[in-house]
Amino acid sequence: MQRETARELLQAKGSTRFYRHGRGVERTAFLLAKKYGIDAEKAAFAGLMHDYGKLYNEEELLRLARKHGIPVNPVMVQEPALLHAPVGAWLLEHELGLQDREMLDAVRHHTTGAAEMSMLSRIVYLADFIEPGRRFKGVKEVRELAFSRKQLEKALLTAVEMTIHNVMQKGKLLHEASIDFRNSLILSLREKELEGSHGEG
Amino acid sequence: MQRETARELLQAKGSTRFYRHGRGVERTAFLLAKKYGIDAEKAAFAGLMHDYGKLYNEEELLRLARKHGIPVNPVMVQEPALLHAPVGAWLLEHELGLQDREMLDAVRHHTTGAAEMSMLSRIVYLADFIEPGRRFKGVKEVRELAFSRKQLEKALLTAVEMTIHNVMQKGKLLHEASIDFRNSLILSLREKELEGSHGEG
Repeated sequence: MQRETARELLQAKGSTRFYRHGRGVERTAFLLAKKYGIDAEKAAFAGLMHDYGKLYNEEELLRLARKHGIPVNPVMVQEPALLHAPVGAWLLEHELGLQDREMLDAVRHHTTGAAEMSMLSRIVYLADFIEPGRRFKGVKEVRELAFSRKQLEKALLTAVEMTIHNVMQKGKLLHEASIDFRNSLILSLREKELEGSHGEG
Repeated sequence: MQRETARELLQAKGSTRFYRHGRGVERTAFLLAKKYGIDAEKAAFAGLMHDYGKLYNEEELLRLARKHGIPVNPVMVQEPALLHAPVGAWLLEHELGLQDREMLDAVRHHTTGAAEMSMLSRIVYLADFIEPGRRFKGVKEVRELAFSRKQLEKALLTAVEMTIHNVMQKGKLLHEASIDFRNSLILSLREKELEGSHGEG
């Protein structure tokens, strides 16, 4: 499917707000991909379609997950909104014929994150967090980390920590994938700091 | 082992600060157990001895864990200080001959929490958080929830959330047992709220 066709599909099926957010993530993922030297076309497409599962309500998401044997973590049973990510990936693969594993994983992991994420997944996760339509407190700092200072892992760590705080503040369940994602970023940043200090020594 | 003998052992082996904290948790666990109707002698003993593993440094804790096949979660390899809880439980069992499963579990889970915790484990966890020597911001509110308002699960939820915030703020790894503990408390509180609103209807 061409990106232009995908845009038309989203515009036809979703609300203006939904469509605008998708376009924002598309554009941001494109720019981040260029910045960090990965395939910008893939990033833009995955960014555009990351919320495809949101075209379905929670009840439909649960039904689709059960019907098609999509793994449903216990936390997702309690917070079915989270299912829009894995069910969205399933729909993109089986209804729209998208076959690229990396793009499907980027859609699957864009909400919770995961312990091991490809650069594409990381970029879609971050683009979802900082696209121009996002206006919450602290988003500017994350944009700056990602773009001006080119510190992708610090930007991701800030994003996932803001998300964890937000989930806690709302009294929602935390998904362990977000914790694994944060832990993996901390370990990677610690390693780099160690390498940095060795380099200086 | 008698509680008096255990006190003497701690006083002989540990610093004044360590001993005072143990006695604070002992006393607080005793009071909480009375308040919530469980065996206060067991709670006091487990409270007194909860930090027994802290008599060993991180290197020794790792060595003991490996030598005796105590399960070491990957997060604990990175944050060996956490090992004082499971290794402490092992030492109480194998060096001091403590056989009570429930007391050993309370020691094992007092730092991270766990998805399923007995009342004894919950009380030791909370006593560790609110004993009189603790002076951090917010501790008074948790004491009030636990004692005056008799809302054990809300007190525990506040305690584990404050702990998660603190771990994040320090840039340390989060242990998934803490997340499981928080999630289980949220689910239990949601259920009770539901029952409450049904009762009113």
